Amino acid sequence: MEELNNDIMQLLEWLGYFGKDPEGGVSRFLYSKEWLEAQKSIEDWMNKEGFNVHFDEVGNLFGGLQGTKYQDETVLTGSHVDTVGNGGLYDGQYGIVAGLLAVKYLKETYGKPLRNLQVVSMAEEEGSRFPYAFWGSKNIVCTAKREEVENIADFDGIAFVDAMRDCGFDFRKESTELRKDLKTFVELHIEQGSVLENEKKSVGVVHSIVGQRRFTIEVTGEANHAGTTPMNYRKDAVHAASVMISDVMNRTKKHGDPLVATVGKIEVKPNVVNVVPGYALFTMDIRHTEKEALVQVTEEITASLNTIAEEMGVGLKIDMWMDADPVPMDKRVVEVVEQQCKEKGLNYKLMHSGAGHDAQIFAPFVPSAMIFVPSREGISHNPAEFTEPHDLAEGVKALIGTLYKLAYQD
Amino acid sequence: MEELNNDIMQLLEWLGYFGKDPEGGVSRFLYSKEWLEAQKSIEDWMNKEGFNVHFDEVGNLFGGLQGTKYQDETVLTGSHVDTVGNGGLYDGQYGIVAGLLAVKYLKETYGKPLRNLQVVSMAEEEGSRFPYAFWGSKNIVCTAKREEVENIADFDGIAFVDAMRDCGFDFRKESTELRKDLKTFVELHIEQGSVLENEKKSVGVVHSIVGQRRFTIEVTGEANHAGTTPMNYRKDAVHAASVMISDVMNRTKKHGDPLVATVGKIEVKPNVVNVVPGYALFTMDIRHTEKEALVQVTEEITASLNTIAEEMGVGLKIDMWMDADPVPMDKRVVEVVEQQCKEKGLNYKLMHSGAGHDAQIFAPFVPSAMIFVPSREGISHNPAEFTEPHDLAEGVKALIGTLYKLAYQD
Repeated sequence: MEELNNDIMQLLEWLGYFGKDPEGGVSRFLYSKEWLEAQKSIEDWMNKEGFNVHFDEVGNLFGGLQGTKYQDETVLTGSHVDTVGNGGLYDGQYGIVAGLLAVKYLKETYGKPLRNLQVVSMAEEEGSRFPYAFWGSKNIVCTAKREEVENIADFDGIAFVDAMRDCGFDFRKESTELRKDLKTFVELHIEQGSVLENEKKSVGVVHSIVGQRRFTIEVTGEANHAGTTPMNYRKDAVHAASVMISDVMNRTKKHGDPLVATVGKIEVKPNVVNVVPGYALFTMDIRHTEKEALVQVTEEITASLNTIAEEMGVGLKIDMWMDADPVPMDKRVVEVVEQQCKEKGLNYKLMHSGAGHDAQIFAPFVPSAMIFVPSREGISHNPAEFTEPHDLAEGVKALIGTLYKLAYQD
Repeated sequence: MEELNNDIMQLLEWLGYFGKDPEGGVSRFLYSKEWLEAQKSIEDWMNKEGFNVHFDEVGNLFGGLQGTKYQDETVLTGSHVDTVGNGGLYDGQYGIVAGLLAVKYLKETYGKPLRNLQVVSMAEEEGSRFPYAFWGSKNIVCTAKREEVENIADFDGIAFVDAMRDCGFDFRKESTELRKDLKTFVELHIEQGSVLENEKKSVGVVHSIVGQRRFTIEVTGEANHAGTTPMNYRKDAVHAASVMISDVMNRTKKHGDPLVATVGKIEVKPNVVNVVPGYALFTMDIRHTEKEALVQVTEEITASLNTIAEEMGVGLKIDMWMDADPVPMDKRVVEVVEQQCKEKGLNYKLMHSGAGHDAQIFAPFVPSAMIFVPSREGISHNPAEFTEPHDLAEGVKALIGTLYKLAYQD
């Protein structure tokens, strides 16, 4: 496996060429010219390697080896081929490249597997071109609905449906059912956080994907003249919001990992230097691996913010507009991954994922697991995305071991 | 003086007709058609009343009575004729209307004054059309500079100079010196705050105008993924800013009146729900009647914010871009106003002004004072601006007494 480092970087550079931005970075949106070129090129690569290859109706690309013993059982690996605007060289495509190299290596080393072994280059995950995410995986598990995308368009006004058909794809047939042969899904992905880097680990074995709740919180006070309104006459929405944000952060830190809370967005009205602000809006994103914890923290924060609003004499409206449950990975598959890390002497860590991934779409239907490799400085969705070649190789080794165990052993 | 209530309302409505917005409110910008019509109409009114009338070079309108004994001494009253966009019926024009009625009443009751008694309808104070404020008063005291406005234009690209010349006015001659006859300036104005209303007073006798300092404060943290970055790895600019804003507010309240601090504007980057914000900017406006207090509070807040930044591991940049000293009113003139309020049995209060006014431009050169009347709910710069007719009349009574004392007595 010595030349793995080189092979991985070569394939990443090759795939990153499709949608390469002149200023660096990769922009490869669903059903774009660059996207179609990437899928067709991966198809060619698979064909050259003697894989059995096919596209599904919407443009997910599958390729791999037929099993010799259990042809009604398929072990699937892979990730998404689309990127965010001006994204990096690793998010998504590393999982595809790793799958290709792992299956190629297994074939060359051990020949045909007992179970079918496939790599998937999924059509879409990021939701970057159209306001819809996980189009690829949701079509594989047959939860994507035609009516959800029939009336959406990209920023240039191009309809989802037109873009899809221009690439030669179309909706999944209504009658299509979830493939019964899908027995396992393993996704290799960059961490998009800095836990592995900070703890100096090369591989993360993911046991669960966090649930998340998102809120819009509106604070209504009274706009007043900044000079003529004494402090005790004020109903200052920004002052109240600042007390609330500090409170959310203090409570979150007190709870400790894996709880995280983020106030990412603030809007103030009238947002003028010399007017006491009468209105402040802020968003809150909270995540945890346990649903009960999410519910409990939501209740605690809601009660506390209401108390602050009452004490400060401002109005408060809390709107929860996203509520996604945590998704545990499959215990048995996670154990296989961890066992392989141990056997191969990899420097690994059991951890959760704080970001959403295709594996969470698979997990309710197909026993799934994820493997992470470090993201330098936690950076993703950015041309500066980077993972050490050594760590990229360690991730592929974990994947190879896992796929061998799942597809080649009885 | 029984019909004062009616006369004031009539004159306010009449003057408010020039620039009346179809949806209510008044928009009367410097050197606009409506502005010129207003000044010409006030000129007509003054002429009909037998006032001596003249415009200065830039369009400030003066009119009044010549003194019989001290013709080299002038007592001046008035305010600005311009408004903000969609302003109210009182800000500025109440001081003009009150001056007209006061001088008319004094003339009809007592005949000619010992000293010259003039009303001024000043060209501009708000800075609403062009990025320049106090153009009227600054020309009277000869501090406005030609080069400050030579290259400025309004939002439609119309040059200040062209607008001025189209109205028949021009720059003050370089050789013009401050009028030696100006011995006192008294400005009657709405409070633009809610102190008088809350304390149920009809008249405010202003002893000083606050100084103000304005700051832009930039907090630099690190943008990170909202899901994958544990709390203790974060450098969250919004969290730090919220602690800082709470701190500023707590310190300001602890100091107590007349200190006020306002964080009116916030800008967050990238300002996205699911990204730990790496950058937050907020403005701070602090005001006090004493310069030493402003300096001391600035030092205290600066030190405290730096401590917070250090503790929270974020960068901090504090830029003070406005530093206007407090302006005390003239003790003797303030005493005259207060004495008149007492003698006339007016329900008054000694207070400071938290907003800027033409009187602060006069004060360093001409002994000045201000009289306030209440603003309902503190509202100004808005069609909802309102002062009870009774209070409007009380203000005029205070002005009449003051002008009588200053211009009719030895």
